This record gives sequence, structure tokens and C-alpha cells, in this order.
Amino acid sequence: MATRVIGAGSLARDLGNWRSVGDDDEAGGRRSARPAYLALAEGIRLLIHDGRAPLGVALPSERDLATTLGVSRTTITSTYALLREHGYLISRQGSRSTVALPPAVPHDGTKPVRGIMALMSNEVATIDLTYAAMSAPPEMQDAYATALQGIPAYLGTHGMDPIGVIALREAVARRYTQRGLATEPDQILITLGAQHGLRLLLNVLTAPAARVLIDHPTYPNAIEAIRDVGARPVPVPLVPEGPGRGWDLDGIRSAARQTAATVAYLVPDYNNPTGLLLDDAGRAELAAIARDTRMTVVVDESMADLQLDPHVAPLPVAAFAKGSEIVTIGSASKSFWGGLRVGWIRTNPALITKLLGIRSTVDLGTPVMDQLATIHLLEHEDSILARRCAQLRSQRSALLAALAEDLPDWRVEAGPGGMSVWAQLPAPVSTALAATAPNHGVLLAAGPRFGVQGAFERFVRLPFSHPEAELRVAVKAMASAYEALTPRAAEPLQPLTVF
Amino acid sequence: MATRVIGAGSLARDLGNWRSVGDDDEAGGRRSARPAYLALAEGIRLLIHDGRAPLGVALPSERDLATTLGVSRTTITSTYALLREHGYLISRQGSRSTVALPPAVPHDGTKPVRGIMALMSNEVATIDLTYAAMSAPPEMQDAYATALQGIPAYLGTHGMDPIGVIALREAVARRYTQRGLATEPDQILITLGAQHGLRLLLNVLTAPAARVLIDHPTYPNAIEAIRDVGARPVPVPLVPEGPGRGWDLDGIRSAARQTAATVAYLVPDYNNPTGLLLDDAGRAELAAIARDTRMTVVVDESMADLQLDPHVAPLPVAAFAKGSEIVTIGSASKSFWGGLRVGWIRTNPALITKLLGIRSTVDLGTPVMDQLATIHLLEHEDSILARRCAQLRSQRSALLAALAEDLPDWRVEAGPGGMSVWAQLPAPVSTALAATAPNHGVLLAAGPRFGVQGAFERFVRLPFSHPEAELRVAVKAMASAYEALTPRAAEPLQPLTVF
Repeated sequence: MATRVIGAGSLARDLGNWRSVGDDDEAGGRRSARPAYLALAEGIRLLIHDGRAPLGVALPSERDLATTLGVSRTTITSTYALLREHGYLISRQGSRSTVALPPAVPHDGTKPVRGIMALMSNEVATIDLTYAAMSAPPEMQDAYATALQGIPAYLGTHGMDPIGVIALREAVARRYTQRGLATEPDQILITLGAQHGLRLLLNVLTAPAARVLIDHPTYPNAIEAIRDVGARPVPVPLVPEGPGRGWDLDGIRSAARQTAATVAYLVPDYNNPTGLLLDDAGRAELAAIARDTRMTVVVDESMADLQLDPHVAPLPVAAFAKGSEIVTIGSASKSFWGGLRVGWIRTNPALITKLLGIRSTVDLGTPVMDQLATIHLLEHEDSILARRCAQLRSQRSALLAALAEDLPDWRVEAGPGGMSVWAQLPAPVSTALAATAPNHGVLLAAGPRFGVQGAFERFVRLPFSHPEAELRVAVKAMASAYEALTPRAAEPLQPLTVF
Repeated sequence: MATRVIGAGSLARDLGNWRSVGDDDEAGGRRSARPAYLALAEGIRLLIHDGRAPLGVALPSERDLATTLGVSRTTITSTYALLREHGYLISRQGSRSTVALPPAVPHDGTKPVRGIMALMSNEVATIDLTYAAMSAPPEMQDAYATALQGIPAYLGTHGMDPIGVIALREAVARRYTQRGLATEPDQILITLGAQHGLRLLLNVLTAPAARVLIDHPTYPNAIEAIRDVGARPVPVPLVPEGPGRGWDLDGIRSAARQTAATVAYLVPDYNNPTGLLLDDAGRAELAAIARDTRMTVVVDESMADLQLDPHVAPLPVAAFAKGSEIVTIGSASKSFWGGLRVGWIRTNPALITKLLGIRSTVDLGTPVMDQLATIHLLEHEDSILARRCAQLRSQRSALLAALAEDLPDWRVEAGPGGMSVWAQLPAPVSTALAATAPNHGVLLAAGPRFGVQGAFERFVRLPFSHPEAELRVAVKAMASAYEALTPRAAEPLQPLTVF
């Protein structure tokens, strides 16, 4: 894809009342004495922190932004210079400046790139709540040891494996069949994880400018993947609370009709971030909508194994399909470990053939060792998942108790599964909270990352995939960050010399 | 991406003289009594075999094709029905029919999807020369055993690793430094292989309709990746033989100027398929061209470790760069094993930050286990590669000797490294040869797959990555297939009942 550019109007909208961001005197209504370029740089930095000005995207031209914001061209020049000097913008020969992070300090590669504030701060951010993922179960070591025993059978081949080893495809197919969805191995394509599966499907199923229905909120990397293939996410709100909590199926039907969406990406098995579950009646209705509107529904079951509350597990959505209208993607990353890059797509063999046809443009296959390890983990999944869900359950309790104690005005209604809750804040300060939180010892993903069009400033995703002690410390840190925001907005930016 | 459609004109051009393909009487100049739909189906099937009608691509509408070929609409309807019935075309609700392979028989997942002829034939194709890749060295088992020892340090983290474990990035950086190209770990991004690295780079560096210069011939999956991101490959011919053999640097310079290409993808370290090497003077000139034309040159070093003839290894192309005009991609797949999905990109930290920004739309990281195994392999690379190159050398000799014996009118001039030779046939029959070869016991990738616009019908890539005995049998099989083509073109297609 080409360098994307943020439009000046769109940036202005996201910036909102940028003159007062981080301004101590905001409550008093007085104008700060800070130069405009500092306030603007701070505003843009908040958007970068938050992911709303994504890495690699170009900012508007200086002239456009000056016109749109009604400030002098010199102000914009100084703003961009300040951001550039601190590594938030990079320039490439003959191209516009694009959004960046200051060069990351070398790290062990097993954690996501740190938030900027944490990198800049002397205080080390101790707890990273930007991801919902657990450490490996003890069986992981056994799984790799078993894989090591099995690998010699493959070492005599060239090893490149775009479709997946047959033993794993059989195991995944058997698992669907046991869940009530008869499946043959030739309906399974092994991928490098759910995200990779989604990307392959989007490449095959969407045309440029195609509409893709999404849950709103949903998983941020899915939104980015939809945009990166040139398609457009169409948000259908999940009702966050109350008796009608969950999916608005009439809304999905009418959005499908009105936008002529050909694809939907939904997470009905413990939606990320809310943890909500679609019931059987809703599944039947969803499949009917897919048929009626000729829309392919991609169902992401990454979280499906993480049932935390007692209920009868619904059938897989695809069990309600009459044809191939439902495509299912799964993953070993959440059920077992994220360091294992194995997922799968379940669909009809014809679509698998198509996916294989384009896969070689992206990668040449799934690592054999990880596939063999996954076979072992699936054989032991009952005990692994029972222990993992028990752990998540008590971590969730610890998180909810800590929130009730330290942040009693945040509203939290947990879903019946998954790895996170979707907390509602009393005021739309999620971005500012995420920006300042690292200074208090915690990294947060702000609500707007889980939606489009700047929604969800009142929400923040809180994963409970971390140990209880960490969660308690993280909540204290959030409370401290939240306290610092009220009435202040965020830490003010300083001029270059003390920036 | 949307379903791509082959234009009727383009299909007609690729089909060429389709009425006589596989026609016994061609030499006599008489028209076959075969119905036109059979001849046309056979022609299209040859293009599918050969990859020139790629999987997942839609054929032209019946009306368009009938008009373009000057045949009746009924002929096209029958042609498509025949292809559909045999699994070469699949239809999706509301969409055009797209090119497919007959549903693959379940296989062990470690081999590429078989050629169609092999699937259809009762005779099993015993030797697959469509790939250039070796089985694993004996050290592979040790590498995984060492990785198993090292994995516990990572099991306590969430494991998702988009940038790469620092120990591997250090090892890769050290290796470049030892080759004469000073490199820091923050210049290294670990990928899922060279193809994945190329795809990430194309996503970041190219705009839709951008021109990307390529060697011609070059690696087929690179051509497909360039097309899949919406860019256009611009072929610059490699001179195949004689004193000027190799890269035409003036041609590269003028193509870059004339097309305003912003990116080039070149394989100067044992070009795939030819095995050619660009010398130091050429490297300096290439870097100068990149600077002068502001073109980023992506240098694929996948084959760089496979030096077979005695010569002083040239410096990496990036050593001739003054800025960041040369980006290097590398891979463990050819040097060690394809079942290990590890590669890397070497560039400046700012571009790595950009690549990380879009990587999460494609996948969430490189498997930790495979990375740890790669560290072990790099530590032992001297002995592994010495053995591997010796093996390739004697396999190359065996291949050349067998060709001289059984196919003396094929011209073959091996390059100084890599895994394949680019054999020149006395007549433009590469596609027909690849189509009929499976019936004789060998699968071939026809010349046109390594180029654009239907070039290279006189060439075929012959890998020598296979054991000597296999290569000798494969050459006998090719000789038999080639013999069958002369004067016949290919095996004729039969009507549906005996198809």
C-alpha cells in the first residue's frame, strides 16, 4: 500500500480542543500561555500514543493543516519540527513526513513495542495492559518436546507447508465435529494465526472499497487489516449493557442491506474487548442474514475456548449455515500460547484452494515444529483449558474487586468469557488516560483503538490475562492516572529543551 | 484484493494457436477433427498447469471470450462446463467462475499442491522439480533440541514477537558485519521468511499502480506479490549467456528513469532461476543508480550462502549504499530448511518502525521456537553450509552430465551459485513440456512462470536441490516427455467421458 495520509479535516476533528489538552488551567477557562506549536505537538502526540495517528501514516501538508486549524504556517512548521526532533515523525527522501515512534530501545523481542511515554519516561512502565494474552501453560514445554520427537519424519522433505500437516488438519476437523459441526480435514487450512487467516480471507473475499461489517467495538488489528486491503469497515454497535446487551441483529441486517457489504468480520464467541457471547437464536439469525444478503460472515473464534461462566456452550455459528456463508477462523494463540504461530481457517475446499493460490504472495507456509506442538496441545486441551479458564476466572474476580475498590465510578459489566472487560469511564477521557498512564506505571490501550470514527472515548479495555498481583497494582496505577486527569487533562508537553 | 479477471484479449494472446495445441496432426498442417470446445479447454488447462492462468483468477465472460476468439458462445459454454466438471473452474454464488485445481487428495502437507496432471494421472509423478529447496541438514534436530532448552525463558511472556528476539537480531547483525557491512541489531527485523519480508516491504514502499523493477527472469512468488499489492512489475532482462552475461545495468538505469519506478526487487546473489552473480563493480553501479533515480532497491539474499564456484564473495550490495537506498532481505529457508519459517529485513531503524506499524495487519510475529533454532544454525553455519554447498555442487554436476547425455540439444550454462540452472530449449515448448511431463514421472515449472508477458517459452528452470539419483531419473523423464512433444505438441485432451 502507498503511504496513507491523514486529511487535515480528519486530524482537526481528532485533535478536538487541542489548545487546552494538557493545560493546567483548563478548568479555569483561561488560555494557557504555552505557545500554540507546543499545544498542537502535544495534541498530535496524544493521537500517536493512542494509535489514532497510526505509524507510517503521513500527516497533512503544513499548508493544509494551518488553513484548517486557523493557525500560522510557522506554527505548523514548529510543531512538525518538534515532533520530528523527538522521533514522532520521520522524513523520507521525496516523501511526506510520516508518524513514527522514537527508535525503540533494544528489547527482548517478546513484548510489543512500548508506549512512547514509557520509552521517554525515566520511570519504567511496569505493567502492560495493552495486550490480552497469557503466558504459556506448563504443557507447552512438553508440546515442543513431543514435536522434537516427531520432527525427523519431516526433515527429509523441503518443509514448506502452505496447507498444514495432515495430522493437525485432522485434529482440528475432529474438534469441530465434536463441537457439533461435522468437518473434514480438506475443509481446514492451517495458518500462522487468526490475524493471518483474516488477512488471507480479506485478500480473497474483498474488492477495493468493499464494505466489511464489524462488531463495534472489535479487535483493533482486524480494523487495520480491513483498511490495509483497501476495504472499509462498517461498524454495527454492540449494545454494551442492559437487557438488550449484545448483538443488534436487526442492525446487522439493515447495515448489510444498506451498504451491500459482501463480508462481515464478527467475534460472537467472547467478543474482544467485551467478552460477550451470541446465543443460539442469534447464531441462527446471523446465518440467515448471511444467506439473505449474500454476505460471507467471517467468524473469529480465537477466544471461543475461554468460557468462564457456567452455560451450555452454543454450537459454532457455522453449524447454522446451509452453504458456505459462514467462514470460521481459529487460533492456538489465546487457548495455548502466542509464541506458537498456528491458527486455521474452516471453510469449503474450493475457497481453501483459492486461499492457497494467494498465500504464496504473503508467506510460504506454517512452521512444522509449531504445528506438531499444536497437535500435542489439542490432545491435552481439556486439562489445559480447565486450568486456564479457572485462572482467568479468578483473575477477572481480582480485577473487578480492585476496580470496585479503587475506581468505583467506572462501570464494568463482564461478559461470560474471553480475556478482557470493557470498562466505561464517567467522562470521555480514555485517550488522555492512556497517554498519562505510563507515567503511573501502566500501559493502556484507549477505547478508540477498538472502534472507528473516534468512538469509545468513554471506554477502555482492561485485560485480565495478567497475574492477580499485577492486576491489583495496575488498577492502583490507573486510579492514580485517572486522579491526575481530574481536573487536569494530561501531563503538559514542555518546549524542546525540556521536552 | 478482489477477484482478478483475465481479460479476453490477454487470454487469447496466452492461448496462441490453441486450435492446434496437443493436436497430432499439427505437423501436417491439417485441422483436427476435435471439437473446438475440447481444443480450447485443453489450451486453457495448459495455462492453468503452467500458472499463467493463476488460481483464484476469473476467466473472461463467455460473451467476451467468444467475440475475441471468433467462436460461438456455445463453444465457450461447453469449454467452461468441461473445465468446471473436472474441477478447473469453481463458481461462487453471484461471482464469476474462477480458476482452480481439482480438489487435492489429502497429502502430508509438506509438499506443494501437486500438478493437476499428476493428480489426474494414474501414474504417480515421482519427482517434483517445481521447487528449489533441500531437505534439512542433520544439525536441524540439534537446533530444535537447543531451542527446546532455551524456550523456558520465553514461556513466561505472552510470546507474540513482531520484531524478533534480540539474540537472533544480534546474530544476524553480526553476520552482516562479518561480511563487510557494519550492522546494528536495531537495523534487523525478523520475518517469517524472505517472501514475507518482501510482502511487508511492498506494502510499505509501493503505491497502487507503482512500478517495481525486476530481474527477468526472476522468482515467481515475487512477481505475484508485486501484482497482489496492486503494483506493476517492470522486467529488465538478464543477459542469459555469452560475454555480457548477467545484469544490464544501463537497462536498469533507463528503465528506472523511464518508468519512474520507486522500488526494484533484484536477486544479485545467485539469481533465481539462473544462478548468476552480480560483481563488485555492478553492485557499486546499482547503488549509484538507486541514489540517482531515488529508487529503493530490495536485494533478496535468500540464495547468497550458496556459493558453488570458487570466487571471492562480493560485498553485500548494501555495503555500496551511501544512505538507505538498498534494503536487504534474507532467509534461513534455503541455507538451512524451509520448514523453519524465519527470515529478516536489514534496513534503517525508521523503516523498521514503519514495517512494524503495518505488520500487525498481516500476522502477529515470528514463532519463538524457530527463532531460537535459527540462532543455533547460524552458530554452526560454516560447517553446515560447507557440506550443503558441496552437496549442491555434486548434484549440479550430476544434473549437467545427465542433461548432456539425454538432452544434448538443450543449452545449459550454470551460474556460480544457487540451486538451479536455466535451461534453454531448442523450441518454445516449455508450457507444453510442463503440461505433459507429469505423465512421464516429473513435475516441472515452465519458463513463463519466471517472467511476465508470456516470456520464456524457450526456457525451463531445473533445480539441482534434489538427490543425484532423483535428478538422473528426472532427466530421463524429461527426455521422454520432450521426445513425446516432438513432433507432437502435447497429449491431446479427450472429450468429457474419457477426459
